[in-house]
Amino acid sequence: MNIYFHGEDFRPEPWLSALRHALSGAGIQAEVAVWEPGAPPGDYALVWAPPQRLLDEQTRLKALFNLGAGVDAITQLRFRPGLRLVRLDDAGMSAQMAEYVLHALVRHFREFDAYEAEATQGHWGFRRPRARQDWPVGILGLGVLGQRVARAVQGLDFPVRGWSRSLRRAEDLGLPGVQCHAGRDGLPAFLAASKVLVCLLPLTSETQGILNRETLGQLMPGGYLINVARGGHLVEEDLIPLIDSGHLAGATLDVFRQEPLPAGHPFWTHPKITVTPHTAARTLRDESVAQIVGKIARLERGEPIAGLVDPVKGY
Amino acid sequence: MNIYFHGEDFRPEPWLSALRHALSGAGIQAEVAVWEPGAPPGDYALVWAPPQRLLDEQTRLKALFNLGAGVDAITQLRFRPGLRLVRLDDAGMSAQMAEYVLHALVRHFREFDAYEAEATQGHWGFRRPRARQDWPVGILGLGVLGQRVARAVQGLDFPVRGWSRSLRRAEDLGLPGVQCHAGRDGLPAFLAASKVLVCLLPLTSETQGILNRETLGQLMPGGYLINVARGGHLVEEDLIPLIDSGHLAGATLDVFRQEPLPAGHPFWTHPKITVTPHTAARTLRDESVAQIVGKIARLERGEPIAGLVDPVKGY
Repeated sequence: MNIYFHGEDFRPEPWLSALRHALSGAGIQAEVAVWEPGAPPGDYALVWAPPQRLLDEQTRLKALFNLGAGVDAITQLRFRPGLRLVRLDDAGMSAQMAEYVLHALVRHFREFDAYEAEATQGHWGFRRPRARQDWPVGILGLGVLGQRVARAVQGLDFPVRGWSRSLRRAEDLGLPGVQCHAGRDGLPAFLAASKVLVCLLPLTSETQGILNRETLGQLMPGGYLINVARGGHLVEEDLIPLIDSGHLAGATLDVFRQEPLPAGHPFWTHPKITVTPHTAARTLRDESVAQIVGKIARLERGEPIAGLVDPVKGY
Repeated sequence: MNIYFHGEDFRPEPWLSALRHALSGAGIQAEVAVWEPGAPPGDYALVWAPPQRLLDEQTRLKALFNLGAGVDAITQLRFRPGLRLVRLDDAGMSAQMAEYVLHALVRHFREFDAYEAEATQGHWGFRRPRARQDWPVGILGLGVLGQRVARAVQGLDFPVRGWSRSLRRAEDLGLPGVQCHAGRDGLPAFLAASKVLVCLLPLTSETQGILNRETLGQLMPGGYLINVARGGHLVEEDLIPLIDSGHLAGATLDVFRQEPLPAGHPFWTHPKITVTPHTAARTLRDESVAQIVGKIARLERGEPIAGLVDPVKGY
């Protein structure tokens, strides 16, 4: 069996080594290599943002494993019908996402940024506590990551709402108490009842630019945006006017239309925008390799696997 | 019925007004007033750090309600035998404590402070992700607040240990997976297996100074201290040498031996110490009043109440 690895943002050696180790542990005989143009036919490939050529040449692949939760970089490509596209289910990403969102939410809600700035001046002073019932948190996207974030935020007693393309029942998700909304028709009521908006949607033609002047303008006054999905969800030009007009209190952004965020981009220096370098939920090597090798083993035994993505729908 | 209020750190009017409203809603006839020396005998008192004179004069009190979770400011006083001392069970404090600890833990673990400092320089760069299994979190004190914090930290997949004076069973606390230690004899093993130490103990003669060179020196290398209990738990002189020697990575401190933390105290300016002004879990008026009035109603009906404190044990 031939297994290929391709990921320009990843150092390949530790991945190849972890893969060989895990495959051997699972009793799977395989050659593991970095994919190169013209390479012999492979059985499986682990990829991040692959070129079209990989898909065009590797016509015998049984499955293509995407090294991340979002598959937007891959669904833009032309797929041969029937190729299985598999995303990482979780692999340690949902815990990272939950802690990123909790940190941004709590830091803003509790004003710890202001407390820290005052502490550097040696100032000891109280701020009036805010009531969390006045700070409902709306989560766009109720997939694996959105559900995990909803659970974590609810664990701190914030009211939580969720929005997804088609209606999810909170009880089915194991999230009793989460108010669920769905579809374009359900978006206005969801936004109007949310003060903090967390974006965890897949990036598709339908969700591109979903964070814009009109939608963000429907949030409760003093609203706050946390975007941990994709830069393409946000119409970047619309954000700063909404903050400077006072309608939004600020934003924490981990993803951007162009990454790295270009030097001189106004997000870098705006006092109410916190920028992180697409680090909210990193792909963790050991967890990812263990999961992918487990799925290869199931596929080889003819068993079903979780995490299949529809390349047309985009999630 | 006479009910008194005393709390030098609190503006009394909103408390009196909230009390009258809640008592009326519960069908309890009562006069509510700020306690003054020489006031007529009262039935109940709500207090924060009262003077001895209040206890000496008010000999007919059926219960004394402490306006906070920690009762150390009150157990130093002389009590008449049989007076019920009642602490707030939770009243919104455990959610605040959980979010404070999560924020401090995640900020340090994920290095968001370093990311933010780099962002102000327009720098886009990754830091190597840390593995949470290498970051066990030890919680000193498994009362209402310690249990809530343990649950929240476990919700982010960190390994969690707890320590209490007498052994608690994780299953009894609804915290499966939390490793429980107890007593002075159990402290070394608990410390040696903890990287982040969260102090949520009551302040008693036994726990005074429990955070010192010897105990903090037993934490895993690169340890981190979060003290949200009382300043008296920490031997302040011992902390900075442990950080400067590299054994501890830093500390987030909400409480201090002297509050407000005096100007010029080295904690204000140490780059690896985050100072907040005793704001981790504030007493929330509406929640506290609702809880106390509920307890007054139960006591008037001769029913048992939760939250009784033993003034001798101190918790």
